Amino acid sequence: MKKYMDEKLQIFEPYMLGYVNELQAPNELKEAMAYSLKAGGKRIRPMLLFAALETYGQKAEKGLDAACALEMIHTYSLIHDDLPAMDNDDLRRGKPTNHKLFGEATAILAGDALLTYAFEIIARSDVYSPEQAVQLIRMLSVAAGPAGMVGGQAADMEGEKKTLSLAELEYIHHHKTGRLLAFSVMAGALIGGADKAETALLETYARHIGLAFQIRDDILDVEGTEEEIGKPVGSDESNEKSTYPVLLTMDGAKQKLSEELQGAHDAIALLKRPAPLLEAFADVIAKRTS
Amino acid sequence: MKKYMDEKLQIFEPYMLGYVNELQAPNELKEAMAYSLKAGGKRIRPMLLFAALETYGQKAEKGLDAACALEMIHTYSLIHDDLPAMDNDDLRRGKPTNHKLFGEATAILAGDALLTYAFEIIARSDVYSPEQAVQLIRMLSVAAGPAGMVGGQAADMEGEKKTLSLAELEYIHHHKTGRLLAFSVMAGALIGGADKAETALLETYARHIGLAFQIRDDILDVEGTEEEIGKPVGSDESNEKSTYPVLLTMDGAKQKLSEELQGAHDAIALLKRPAPLLEAFADVIAKRTS
Repeated sequence: MKKYMDEKLQIFEPYMLGYVNELQAPNELKEAMAYSLKAGGKRIRPMLLFAALETYGQKAEKGLDAACALEMIHTYSLIHDDLPAMDNDDLRRGKPTNHKLFGEATAILAGDALLTYAFEIIARSDVYSPEQAVQLIRMLSVAAGPAGMVGGQAADMEGEKKTLSLAELEYIHHHKTGRLLAFSVMAGALIGGADKAETALLETYARHIGLAFQIRDDILDVEGTEEEIGKPVGSDESNEKSTYPVLLTMDGAKQKLSEELQGAHDAIALLKRPAPLLEAFADVIAKRTS
Repeated sequence: MKKYMDEKLQIFEPYMLGYVNELQAPNELKEAMAYSLKAGGKRIRPMLLFAALETYGQKAEKGLDAACALEMIHTYSLIHDDLPAMDNDDLRRGKPTNHKLFGEATAILAGDALLTYAFEIIARSDVYSPEQAVQLIRMLSVAAGPAGMVGGQAADMEGEKKTLSLAELEYIHHHKTGRLLAFSVMAGALIGGADKAETALLETYARHIGLAFQIRDDILDVEGTEEEIGKPVGSDESNEKSTYPVLLTMDGAKQKLSEELQGAHDAIALLKRPAPLLEAFADVIAKRTS
Protein backbone atom coordinates (compact mmCIF):
# COMPACT_ATOMS: atom_id res chain seq x y z
CA MET A 1 0.00 0.00 0.00
CA LYS A 2 2.77 2.37 0.97
CA LYS A 3 4.63 1.41 -2.20
CA TYR A 4 1.49 2.03 -4.30
CA MET A 5 1.00 5.45 -2.80
CA ASP A 6 4.67 6.46 -3.12
CA GLU A 7 4.69 5.43 -6.76
CA LYS A 8 1.58 7.46 -7.53
CA LEU A 9 2.84 10.46 -5.57
CA GLN A 10 5.98 10.61 -7.68
CA ILE A 11 3.84 11.09 -10.77
CA PHE A 12 1.11 13.21 -9.22
CA GLU A 13 3.11 15.87 -7.35
CA PRO A 14 5.18 17.27 -10.24
CA TYR A 15 2.19 16.96 -12.56
CA MET A 16 0.02 19.09 -10.29
CA LEU A 17 2.70 21.70 -9.61
CA GLY A 18 3.33 21.90 -13.34
CA TYR A 19 -0.15 23.34 -13.73
CA VAL A 20 0.73 26.20 -11.39
CA ASN A 21 4.15 26.81 -12.93
CA GLU A 22 2.74 27.20 -16.43
CA LEU A 23 0.27 29.92 -15.36
CA GLN A 24 0.61 33.43 -16.73
CA ALA A 25 -0.19 35.16 -13.45
CA PRO A 26 1.41 37.45 -10.84
CA ASN A 27 4.31 35.66 -9.13
CA GLU A 28 3.15 36.18 -5.58
CA LEU A 29 -0.20 34.61 -6.41
CA LYS A 30 1.49 31.60 -8.01
CA GLU A 31 3.82 31.22 -5.04
CA ALA A 32 0.91 31.28 -2.61
CA MET A 33 -0.97 28.67 -4.67
CA ALA A 34 2.09 26.42 -4.92
CA TYR A 35 2.97 26.82 -1.24
CA SER A 36 -0.29 25.34 -0.01
CA LEU A 37 -0.38 22.67 -2.71
CA LYS A 38 3.13 21.56 -1.67
CA ALA A 39 2.19 21.56 2.01
CA GLY A 40 -0.29 18.78 1.23
CA GLY A 41 -0.35 15.59 3.20
CA LYS A 42 -0.94 12.08 1.98
CA ARG A 43 -3.14 13.04 -0.98
CA ILE A 44 -5.84 10.66 0.20
CA ARG A 45 -8.38 12.01 -2.29
CA PRO A 46 -6.24 11.60 -5.44
CA MET A 47 -5.16 8.15 -4.21
CA LEU A 48 -8.79 7.09 -3.78
CA LEU A 49 -9.54 8.32 -7.28
CA PHE A 50 -6.64 6.31 -8.72
CA ALA A 51 -7.66 3.24 -6.73
CA ALA A 52 -11.26 3.39 -7.97
CA LEU A 53 -10.03 3.85 -11.53
CA GLU A 54 -7.69 0.88 -11.35
CA THR A 55 -10.49 -1.23 -9.90
CA TYR A 56 -12.14 -0.85 -13.31
CA GLY A 57 -9.01 -1.78 -15.20
CA GLN A 58 -8.03 1.73 -16.24
CA LYS A 59 -4.61 3.31 -15.85
CA ALA A 60 -4.22 5.80 -13.03
CA GLU A 61 -2.89 8.34 -15.56
CA LYS A 62 -6.42 8.83 -16.86
CA GLY A 63 -7.31 10.20 -13.44
CA LEU A 64 -4.49 12.74 -13.17
CA ASP A 65 -6.40 15.80 -14.32
CA ALA A 66 -9.47 15.04 -12.20
CA ALA A 67 -7.18 14.33 -9.24
CA CYS A 68 -5.39 17.67 -9.69
CA ALA A 69 -8.71 19.50 -9.77
CA LEU A 70 -9.87 17.65 -6.69
CA GLU A 71 -6.70 18.34 -4.71
CA MET A 72 -6.76 22.02 -5.72
CA ILE A 73 -10.29 22.35 -4.41
CA HIS A 74 -9.39 20.54 -1.20
CA THR A 75 -6.39 22.86 -0.80
CA TYR A 76 -8.38 26.04 -1.46
CA SER A 77 -10.85 24.98 1.24
CA LEU A 78 -8.03 24.59 3.75
CA ILE A 79 -6.60 28.03 2.90
CA HIS A 80 -9.98 29.73 3.37
CA ASP A 81 -10.84 27.69 6.50
CA ASP A 82 -7.61 28.79 8.16
CA LEU A 83 -8.30 32.53 7.66
CA PRO A 84 -8.63 34.76 10.73
CA ALA A 85 -12.36 35.26 10.05
CA MET A 86 -12.86 31.47 9.94
CA ASP A 87 -10.83 29.08 12.13
CA ASN A 88 -7.95 31.56 12.60
CA ASP A 89 -5.23 28.92 12.46
CA ASP A 90 -1.56 29.87 12.37
CA LEU A 91 -0.26 26.40 11.63
CA ARG A 92 -1.30 23.59 9.34
CA ARG A 93 0.62 20.35 9.29
CA GLY A 94 3.29 22.08 11.36
CA LYS A 95 3.84 24.89 8.82
CA PRO A 96 2.62 28.49 8.78
CA THR A 97 -0.80 28.79 7.17
CA ASN A 98 -1.09 30.57 3.84
CA HIS A 99 -2.26 33.93 5.23
CA LYS A 100 0.47 33.91 7.89
CA LEU A 101 3.06 33.80 5.13
CA PHE A 102 1.45 35.73 2.27
CA GLY A 103 -1.11 37.92 4.06
CA GLU A 104 -4.87 37.60 4.12
CA ALA A 105 -5.60 39.25 0.79
CA THR A 106 -3.25 36.97 -1.14
CA ALA A 107 -4.52 33.92 0.77
CA ILE A 108 -8.12 34.72 -0.18
CA LEU A 109 -7.09 35.20 -3.82
CA ALA A 110 -4.91 32.06 -3.87
CA GLY A 111 -7.95 30.09 -2.67
CA ASP A 112 -10.18 31.67 -5.29
CA ALA A 113 -7.55 30.96 -7.94
CA LEU A 114 -7.19 27.28 -7.03
CA LEU A 115 -10.96 26.79 -7.00
CA THR A 116 -11.39 28.39 -10.41
CA TYR A 117 -8.34 26.72 -11.96
CA ALA A 118 -9.62 23.30 -10.87
CA PHE A 119 -12.56 23.58 -13.25
CA GLU A 120 -10.34 24.83 -16.07
CA ILE A 121 -8.08 21.80 -15.70
CA ILE A 122 -10.94 19.37 -16.21
CA ALA A 123 -12.53 21.46 -18.97
CA ARG A 124 -9.32 21.61 -21.00
CA SER A 125 -8.12 18.07 -20.36
CA ASP A 126 -7.78 16.01 -23.55
CA VAL A 127 -8.22 12.76 -21.61
CA TYR A 128 -11.97 13.05 -21.05
CA SER A 129 -14.77 13.09 -23.59
CA PRO A 130 -16.95 16.23 -23.42
CA GLU A 131 -19.65 14.11 -21.74
CA GLN A 132 -17.21 12.87 -19.11
CA ALA A 133 -15.78 16.35 -18.51
CA VAL A 134 -19.23 17.89 -18.02
CA GLN A 135 -20.24 15.08 -15.68
CA LEU A 136 -17.00 15.40 -13.67
CA ILE A 137 -17.45 19.17 -13.36
CA ARG A 138 -21.06 18.72 -12.35
CA MET A 139 -20.20 16.17 -9.65
CA LEU A 140 -17.25 18.20 -8.40
CA SER A 141 -19.14 21.49 -8.24
CA VAL A 142 -22.04 19.87 -6.38
CA ALA A 143 -19.64 18.18 -3.94
CA ALA A 144 -17.66 21.38 -3.32
CA GLY A 145 -20.39 24.02 -3.50
CA PRO A 146 -23.18 25.39 -1.29
CA ALA A 147 -25.04 22.05 -1.21
CA GLY A 148 -21.75 20.29 -0.39
CA MET A 149 -18.47 21.33 1.19
CA VAL A 150 -19.13 25.09 1.46
CA GLY A 151 -22.54 24.38 2.99
CA GLY A 152 -20.90 22.02 5.49
CA GLN A 153 -18.38 24.66 6.44
CA ALA A 154 -21.17 27.23 6.91
CA ALA A 155 -23.10 24.79 9.10
CA ASP A 156 -19.91 24.05 11.04
CA MET A 157 -19.41 27.74 11.81
CA GLU A 158 -23.03 28.11 12.90
CA GLY A 159 -22.71 25.01 15.08
CA GLU A 160 -19.59 26.11 16.93
CA LYS A 161 -19.93 26.72 20.65
CA LYS A 162 -23.23 24.91 20.84
CA THR A 163 -23.74 21.22 21.53
CA LEU A 164 -24.78 19.47 18.36
CA SER A 165 -26.94 16.39 18.06
CA LEU A 166 -25.37 13.37 16.39
CA ALA A 167 -27.55 14.04 13.32
CA GLU A 168 -26.30 17.64 13.08
CA LEU A 169 -22.71 16.49 13.49
CA GLU A 170 -23.14 13.95 10.70
CA TYR A 171 -24.73 16.56 8.44
CA ILE A 172 -21.69 18.78 8.91
CA HIS A 173 -19.14 16.05 8.31
CA HIS A 174 -21.00 14.47 5.45
CA HIS A 175 -20.98 17.85 3.70
CA LYS A 176 -17.73 19.40 4.89
CA THR A 177 -15.45 16.44 4.20
CA GLY A 178 -17.60 13.52 3.06
CA ARG A 179 -18.83 14.89 -0.25
CA LEU A 180 -15.36 15.60 -1.61
CA LEU A 181 -14.05 12.21 -0.46
CA ALA A 182 -17.04 10.64 -2.17
CA PHE A 183 -16.23 12.55 -5.34
CA SER A 184 -12.78 10.93 -5.35
CA VAL A 185 -14.32 7.49 -5.64
CA MET A 186 -17.19 8.49 -7.93
CA ALA A 187 -14.86 10.27 -10.34
CA GLY A 188 -12.70 7.16 -10.57
CA ALA A 189 -15.81 5.09 -11.20
CA LEU A 190 -17.04 7.47 -13.89
CA ILE A 191 -13.73 7.62 -15.75
CA GLY A 192 -13.36 3.87 -15.31
CA GLY A 193 -16.76 3.21 -16.83
CA ALA A 194 -18.47 1.60 -13.82
CA ASP A 195 -22.19 0.90 -14.28
CA LYS A 196 -24.97 2.36 -12.13
CA ALA A 197 -25.22 -0.49 -9.62
CA GLU A 198 -21.48 -0.50 -9.07
CA THR A 199 -21.46 3.28 -8.73
CA ALA A 200 -24.17 3.12 -6.06
CA LEU A 201 -22.10 0.61 -4.08
CA LEU A 202 -19.06 2.84 -4.39
CA GLU A 203 -21.12 5.76 -3.13
CA THR A 204 -22.06 3.75 -0.05
CA TYR A 205 -18.39 2.82 0.42
CA ALA A 206 -17.41 6.48 0.07
CA ARG A 207 -19.99 7.60 2.59
CA HIS A 208 -18.69 5.14 5.17
CA ILE A 209 -15.03 6.02 4.70
CA GLY A 210 -15.95 9.72 4.80
CA LEU A 211 -17.46 9.32 8.26
CA ALA A 212 -14.66 6.97 9.34
CA PHE A 213 -12.17 9.64 8.28
CA GLN A 214 -13.83 12.26 10.44
CA ILE A 215 -14.33 10.04 13.49
CA ARG A 216 -10.66 9.08 13.30
CA ASP A 217 -9.81 12.79 13.11
CA ASP A 218 -11.77 13.49 16.29
CA ILE A 219 -10.13 10.55 18.09
CA LEU A 220 -6.66 11.67 17.02
CA ASP A 221 -7.34 15.14 18.38
CA VAL A 222 -7.62 13.51 21.81
CA GLU A 223 -5.24 10.56 21.58
CA GLY A 224 -2.69 11.63 18.97
CA THR A 225 0.57 13.50 19.55
CA GLU A 226 1.20 17.04 18.37
CA GLU A 227 4.08 15.71 16.28
CA GLU A 228 1.81 13.22 14.51
CA ILE A 229 -1.14 15.48 13.79
CA GLY A 230 0.77 18.72 13.14
CA LYS A 231 -1.39 20.85 15.45
CA PRO A 232 -1.88 21.08 19.22
CA VAL A 233 -3.59 18.04 20.74
CA GLY A 234 -6.93 18.79 22.40
CA SER A 235 -7.73 21.83 20.24
CA ASP A 236 -11.29 20.59 19.68
CA GLU A 237 -11.86 20.42 23.45
CA SER A 238 -10.46 23.88 24.08
CA ASN A 239 -12.67 25.20 21.24
CA GLU A 240 -15.64 23.42 22.86
CA LYS A 241 -16.30 21.65 19.60
CA SER A 242 -18.90 18.92 19.32
CA THR A 243 -17.00 15.77 18.33
CA TYR A 244 -17.73 12.05 18.21
CA PRO A 245 -15.85 11.34 21.47
CA VAL A 246 -17.77 14.15 23.18
CA LEU A 247 -21.17 12.97 21.92
CA LEU A 248 -20.59 9.20 22.11
CA THR A 249 -17.75 8.83 24.67
CA MET A 250 -14.39 7.63 23.41
CA ASP A 251 -15.47 3.99 23.48
CA GLY A 252 -18.64 4.85 21.59
CA ALA A 253 -16.65 6.77 18.97
CA LYS A 254 -14.29 3.81 18.47
CA GLN A 255 -17.26 1.49 18.17
CA LYS A 256 -18.82 3.74 15.53
CA LEU A 257 -15.53 3.97 13.67
CA SER A 258 -15.36 0.20 13.49
CA GLU A 259 -18.98 0.05 12.24
CA GLU A 260 -18.24 2.55 9.48
CA LEU A 261 -15.16 0.60 8.46
CA GLN A 262 -17.24 -2.57 8.33
CA GLY A 263 -19.88 -0.77 6.26
CA ALA A 264 -17.21 0.23 3.75
CA HIS A 265 -15.93 -3.36 3.48
CA ASP A 266 -19.48 -4.70 3.11
CA ALA A 267 -20.11 -2.40 0.15
CA ILE A 268 -16.86 -3.44 -1.52
CA ALA A 269 -17.68 -7.12 -1.02
CA LEU A 270 -20.80 -6.65 -3.17
CA LEU A 271 -18.86 -5.27 -6.17
CA LYS A 272 -18.64 -7.53 -9.22
CA ARG A 273 -14.86 -7.43 -9.19
CA PRO A 274 -12.26 -7.59 -6.44
CA ALA A 275 -11.15 -4.19 -5.17
CA PRO A 276 -8.15 -4.82 -2.92
CA LEU A 277 -6.93 -1.22 -3.27
CA LEU A 278 -10.24 0.21 -2.05
CA GLU A 279 -10.28 -2.27 0.84
CA ALA A 280 -6.76 -1.29 1.83
CA PHE A 281 -7.70 2.40 1.65
CA ALA A 282 -10.61 1.95 4.04
CA ASP A 283 -8.17 0.46 6.54
CA VAL A 284 -5.61 3.22 5.99
CA ILE A 285 -8.25 5.88 6.65
CA ALA A 286 -9.73 4.22 9.72
CA LYS A 287 -6.39 3.41 11.31
CA ARG A 288 -4.24 6.41 10.36
CA THR A 289 -2.22 8.08 13.08
CA SER A 290 -1.90 11.48 11.40
CA MET B 1 -32.24 50.10 -25.48
CA LYS B 2 -33.72 50.76 -22.04
CA LYS B 3 -36.79 48.79 -23.08
CA TYR B 4 -34.64 45.89 -24.28
CA MET B 5 -32.75 45.78 -21.00
CA ASP B 6 -35.86 46.05 -18.82
CA GLU B 7 -37.51 43.23 -20.72
CA LYS B 8 -34.50 40.96 -20.29
CA LEU B 9 -34.10 41.88 -16.63
CA GLN B 10 -37.65 40.76 -15.90
CA ILE B 11 -36.77 37.29 -17.12
CA PHE B 12 -33.22 37.14 -15.83
CA GLU B 13 -33.61 38.30 -12.21
CA PRO B 14 -36.17 35.73 -11.00
CA TYR B 15 -34.45 33.01 -13.02
CA MET B 16 -31.11 33.65 -11.33
CA LEU B 17 -32.57 33.95 -7.82
CA GLY B 18 -34.47 30.72 -8.43
CA TYR B 19 -31.14 28.91 -8.57
CA VAL B 20 -30.30 30.13 -5.06
CA ASN B 21 -33.78 29.41 -3.68
CA GLU B 22 -33.72 25.80 -4.81
CA LEU B 23 -30.41 25.07 -3.05
CA GLN B 24 -30.31 22.59 -0.18
CA ALA B 25 -27.93 24.63 1.95
CA PRO B 26 -27.79 26.48 5.29
CA ASN B 27 -30.22 29.43 5.27
CA GLU B 28 -27.73 32.09 6.28
CA LEU B 29 -25.45 31.09 3.41
CA LYS B 30 -28.33 31.25 0.91
CA GLU B 31 -29.40 34.63 2.27
CA ALA B 32 -25.89 36.01 1.90
CA MET B 33 -25.65 34.70 -1.67
CA ALA B 34 -29.06 36.13 -2.60
CA TYR B 35 -28.37 39.47 -0.91
CA SER B 36 -25.39 40.30 -3.09
CA LEU B 37 -27.02 38.91 -6.22
CA LYS B 38 -30.03 41.15 -5.61
CA ALA B 39 -27.83 44.17 -4.95
CA GLY B 40 -26.63 43.91 -8.55
CA GLY B 41 -26.65 46.85 -10.87
CA LYS B 42 -27.48 46.96 -14.52
CA ARG B 43 -26.40 43.40 -15.34
CA ILE B 44 -24.17 44.66 -18.10
CA ARG B 45 -22.49 41.28 -18.55
CA PRO B 46 -25.67 39.21 -18.97
CA MET B 47 -27.06 41.90 -21.30
CA LEU B 48 -23.94 41.75 -23.47
CA LEU B 49 -24.26 37.98 -23.62
CA PHE B 50 -27.89 38.22 -24.71
CA ALA B 51 -27.04 40.90 -27.28
CA ALA B 52 -24.26 38.80 -28.82
CA LEU B 53 -26.55 35.80 -28.94
CA GLU B 54 -29.36 37.70 -30.65
CA THR B 55 -26.87 39.06 -33.16
CA TYR B 56 -26.57 35.46 -34.38
CA GLY B 57 -30.31 34.95 -34.55
CA GLN B 58 -30.68 32.94 -31.36
CA LYS B 59 -33.15 33.57 -28.58
CA ALA B 60 -31.81 35.24 -25.43
CA GLU B 61 -33.27 32.36 -23.38
CA LYS B 62 -30.47 30.11 -24.62
CA GLY B 63 -28.06 32.38 -22.82
CA LEU B 64 -29.81 32.38 -19.44
CA ASP B 65 -27.73 29.69 -17.75
CA ALA B 66 -24.41 31.05 -18.99
CA ALA B 67 -25.52 34.56 -17.96
CA CYS B 68 -26.43 33.34 -14.44
CA ALA B 69 -23.03 31.70 -14.08
CA LEU B 70 -21.32 34.86 -15.31
CA GLU B 71 -23.23 37.15 -12.97
CA MET B 72 -22.61 34.84 -10.00
CA ILE B 73 -18.88 34.96 -10.67
CA HIS B 74 -18.96 38.74 -11.06
CA THR B 75 -20.89 38.97 -7.77
CA TYR B 76 -18.53 36.65 -5.87
CA SER B 77 -15.61 38.82 -7.00
CA LEU B 78 -17.29 41.93 -5.59
CA ILE B 79 -17.98 40.21 -2.24
CA HIS B 80 -14.36 39.12 -1.88
CA ASP B 81 -12.96 42.44 -3.15
CA ASP B 82 -14.95 44.33 -0.50
CA LEU B 83 -13.54 42.26 2.41
CA PRO B 84 -11.53 44.05 5.11
CA ALA B 85 -8.33 42.29 3.98
CA MET B 86 -8.90 43.52 0.41
CA ASP B 87 -10.53 46.91 -0.34
CA ASN B 88 -12.28 47.10 3.06
CA ASP B 89 -15.43 48.71 1.69
CA ASP B 90 -18.50 49.21 3.88
CA LEU B 91 -20.82 50.23 1.08
CA ARG B 92 -21.48 49.02 -2.43
CA ARG B 93 -24.06 50.70 -4.60
CA GLY B 94 -25.22 52.55 -1.51
CA LYS B 95 -25.93 49.38 0.50
CA PRO B 96 -23.91 47.64 3.23
CA THR B 97 -21.38 45.22 1.77
CA ASN B 98 -21.91 41.50 2.33
CA HIS B 99 -19.46 41.14 5.24
CA LYS B 100 -20.92 44.20 6.98
CA LEU B 101 -24.28 42.46 7.09
CA PHE B 102 -23.39 38.78 7.41
CA GLY B 103 -19.90 38.86 8.89
CA GLU B 104 -16.59 38.08 7.22
CA ALA B 105 -16.76 34.30 7.48
CA THR B 106 -20.16 34.06 5.80
CA ALA B 107 -19.11 36.60 3.16
CA ILE B 108 -16.04 34.52 2.26
CA LEU B 109 -18.19 31.38 2.06
CA ALA B 110 -20.96 33.11 0.08
CA GLY B 111 -18.32 34.13 -2.46
CA ASP B 112 -16.88 30.61 -2.62
CA ALA B 113 -20.40 29.23 -2.99
CA LEU B 114 -21.35 31.54 -5.86
CA LEU B 115 -18.10 30.78 -7.69
CA THR B 116 -18.56 27.03 -7.38
CA TYR B 117 -22.29 27.09 -8.14
CA ALA B 118 -21.64 29.03 -11.35
CA PHE B 119 -19.82 26.05 -12.85
CA GLU B 120 -22.53 23.65 -11.69
CA ILE B 121 -25.20 25.72 -13.42
CA ILE B 122 -23.46 25.46 -16.78
CA ALA B 123 -22.55 21.80 -16.29
CA ARG B 124 -26.11 20.76 -15.51
CA SER B 125 -27.85 23.00 -18.04
CA ASP B 126 -29.88 21.08 -20.59
CA VAL B 127 -29.62 23.91 -23.10
CA TYR B 128 -26.00 23.31 -24.10
CA SER B 129 -24.43 20.34 -25.79
CA PRO B 130 -21.62 18.72 -23.79
CA GLU B 131 -19.14 20.31 -26.22
CA GLN B 132 -20.66 23.77 -25.68
CA ALA B 133 -20.80 23.32 -21.90
CA VAL B 134 -17.14 22.28 -21.70
CA GLN B 135 -16.10 25.17 -23.91
CA LEU B 136 -18.16 27.67 -21.87
CA ILE B 137 -16.66 26.38 -18.61
CA ARG B 138 -13.19 26.52 -20.07
CA MET B 139 -13.61 30.11 -21.28
CA LEU B 140 -15.25 31.20 -18.03
CA SER B 141 -12.65 29.60 -15.78
CA VAL B 142 -9.79 31.12 -17.79
CA ALA B 143 -11.46 34.55 -17.71
CA ALA B 144 -12.16 34.38 -13.97
CA GLY B 145 -9.11 32.51 -12.70
CA PRO B 146 -5.45 33.21 -11.91
CA ALA B 147 -4.63 34.10 -15.54
CA GLY B 148 -7.70 36.34 -15.66
CA MET B 149 -9.77 38.19 -13.08
CA VAL B 150 -8.11 36.82 -9.92
CA GLY B 151 -4.69 37.58 -11.39
CA GLY B 152 -5.84 41.11 -12.18
CA GLN B 153 -7.04 41.59 -8.63
CA ALA B 154 -3.71 40.29 -7.27
CA ALA B 155 -1.81 42.69 -9.55
CA ASP B 156 -4.12 45.51 -8.49
CA MET B 157 -3.34 44.91 -4.82
CA GLU B 158 0.39 44.78 -5.53
CA GLY B 159 0.11 47.98 -7.55
CA GLU B 160 -1.67 50.01 -4.89
CA LYS B 161 0.20 52.96 -3.46
CA LYS B 162 2.72 52.96 -6.25
CA THR B 163 2.47 54.87 -9.51
CA LEU B 164 1.76 52.47 -12.34
CA SER B 165 2.77 52.83 -15.95
CA LEU B 166 -0.03 52.92 -18.51
CA ALA B 167 0.94 49.39 -19.56
CA GLU B 168 0.67 48.11 -15.98
CA LEU B 169 -2.67 49.85 -15.55
CA GLU B 170 -3.99 48.23 -18.72
CA TYR B 171 -2.74 44.82 -17.64
CA ILE B 172 -4.69 45.17 -14.40
CA HIS B 173 -7.90 46.34 -16.04
CA HIS B 174 -7.72 43.92 -18.92
CA HIS B 175 -7.51 41.09 -16.40
CA LYS B 176 -9.56 42.39 -13.50
CA THR B 177 -12.62 43.50 -15.46
CA GLY B 178 -11.89 43.07 -19.17
CA ARG B 179 -11.66 39.29 -19.32
CA LEU B 180 -15.08 38.70 -17.78
CA LEU B 181 -16.68 41.37 -19.97
CA ALA B 182 -15.08 39.69 -22.96
CA PHE B 183 -16.47 36.34 -21.84
CA SER B 184 -19.97 37.84 -22.00
CA VAL B 185 -19.60 38.52 -25.70
CA MET B 186 -17.63 35.36 -26.50
CA ALA B 187 -20.14 33.14 -24.72
CA GLY B 188 -22.97 34.69 -26.72
CA ALA B 189 -20.98 34.12 -29.91
CA LEU B 190 -20.25 30.50 -28.99
CA ILE B 191 -23.86 29.65 -28.13
CA GLY B 192 -25.02 31.58 -31.19
CA GLY B 193 -22.70 29.60 -33.45
CA ALA B 194 -20.48 32.44 -34.69
CA ASP B 195 -17.53 31.33 -36.83
CA LYS B 196 -13.86 31.95 -36.01
CA ALA B 197 -13.46 35.20 -37.94
CA GLU B 198 -16.58 36.68 -36.39
CA THR B 199 -15.49 35.52 -32.94
CA ALA B 200 -12.12 37.24 -33.37
CA LEU B 201 -13.87 40.51 -34.26
CA LEU B 202 -16.11 40.15 -31.26
CA GLU B 203 -13.06 39.61 -29.07
CA THR B 204 -11.60 42.88 -30.36
CA TYR B 205 -14.92 44.60 -29.67
CA ALA B 206 -14.98 43.15 -26.17
CA ARG B 207 -11.45 44.29 -25.45
CA HIS B 208 -12.29 47.86 -26.42
CA ILE B 209 -15.49 48.05 -24.42
CA GLY B 210 -13.70 46.49 -21.46
CA LEU B 211 -11.16 49.31 -21.42
CA ALA B 212 -13.85 51.90 -22.14
CA PHE B 213 -15.77 50.57 -19.16
CA GLN B 214 -12.82 51.06 -16.86
CA ILE B 215 -11.81 54.49 -18.16
CA ARG B 216 -15.39 55.63 -17.71
CA ASP B 217 -15.28 54.26 -14.15
CA ASP B 218 -12.17 56.30 -13.38
CA ILE B 219 -13.72 59.44 -14.89
CA LEU B 220 -16.92 58.96 -12.89
CA ASP B 221 -14.91 58.65 -9.70
CA VAL B 222 -13.81 62.25 -10.29
CA GLU B 223 -16.78 63.80 -12.08
CA GLY B 224 -19.77 61.74 -10.90
CA THR B 225 -21.95 62.41 -7.89
CA GLU B 226 -22.07 60.14 -4.85
CA GLU B 227 -25.75 59.55 -5.51
CA GLU B 228 -25.03 58.38 -9.05
CA ILE B 229 -22.09 56.10 -8.36
CA GLY B 230 -23.21 54.78 -4.94
CA LYS B 231 -19.88 55.42 -3.24
CA PRO B 232 -17.95 58.53 -2.17
CA VAL B 233 -16.64 60.60 -5.08
CA GLY B 234 -12.86 60.90 -5.18
CA SER B 235 -12.17 57.62 -3.37
CA ASP B 236 -9.51 56.68 -5.96
CA GLU B 237 -7.66 59.93 -5.27
CA SER B 238 -7.81 59.53 -1.50
CA ASN B 239 -6.54 55.95 -1.95
CA GLU B 240 -3.73 57.29 -4.17
CA LYS B 241 -4.80 54.91 -6.90
CA SER B 242 -3.29 55.04 -10.36
CA THR B 243 -6.15 55.87 -12.72
CA TYR B 244 -6.51 57.00 -16.32
CA PRO B 245 -7.16 60.65 -15.37
CA VAL B 246 -4.07 60.59 -13.12
CA LEU B 247 -1.83 59.05 -15.77
CA LEU B 248 -3.25 60.81 -18.83
CA THR B 249 -4.93 63.97 -17.40
CA MET B 250 -8.71 64.17 -17.56
CA ASP B 251 -8.65 65.36 -21.18
CA GLY B 252 -6.32 62.54 -22.13
CA ALA B 253 -8.57 59.98 -20.40
CA LYS B 254 -11.60 61.28 -22.28
CA GLN B 255 -9.68 61.16 -25.53
CA LYS B 256 -8.68 57.54 -24.85
CA LEU B 257 -12.25 56.66 -23.94
CA SER B 258 -13.44 57.98 -27.25
CA GLU B 259 -10.71 56.00 -29.08
CA GLU B 260 -11.74 52.79 -27.35
CA LEU B 261 -15.37 53.43 -28.21
CA GLN B 262 -14.40 53.99 -31.83
CA GLY B 263 -12.36 50.78 -31.81
CA ALA B 264 -15.41 48.88 -30.61
CA HIS B 265 -17.58 50.33 -33.38
CA ASP B 266 -14.91 49.61 -36.00
CA ALA B 267 -14.86 45.93 -35.03
CA ILE B 268 -18.65 45.70 -35.18
CA ALA B 269 -18.68 47.34 -38.62
CA LEU B 270 -16.59 44.43 -39.95
CA LEU B 271 -19.07 41.75 -38.84
CA LYS B 272 -20.98 39.95 -41.59
CA ARG B 273 -24.30 40.92 -40.07
CA PRO B 274 -25.65 44.11 -38.51
CA ALA B 275 -25.29 44.22 -34.73
CA PRO B 276 -27.29 47.23 -33.55
CA LEU B 277 -27.57 45.86 -30.01
CA LEU B 278 -23.81 45.54 -29.64
CA GLU B 279 -23.33 49.05 -31.05
CA ALA B 280 -25.84 50.45 -28.61
CA PHE B 281 -24.11 48.64 -25.75
CA ALA B 282 -20.76 50.18 -26.54
CA ASP B 283 -22.38 53.60 -26.29
CA VAL B 284 -24.15 52.70 -23.04
CA ILE B 285 -20.87 51.59 -21.49
CA ALA B 286 -18.83 54.57 -22.65
CA LYS B 287 -21.43 57.14 -21.69
CA ARG B 288 -22.92 55.70 -18.49
CA THR B 289 -23.29 58.00 -15.50
CA SER B 290 -23.36 55.28 -12.84
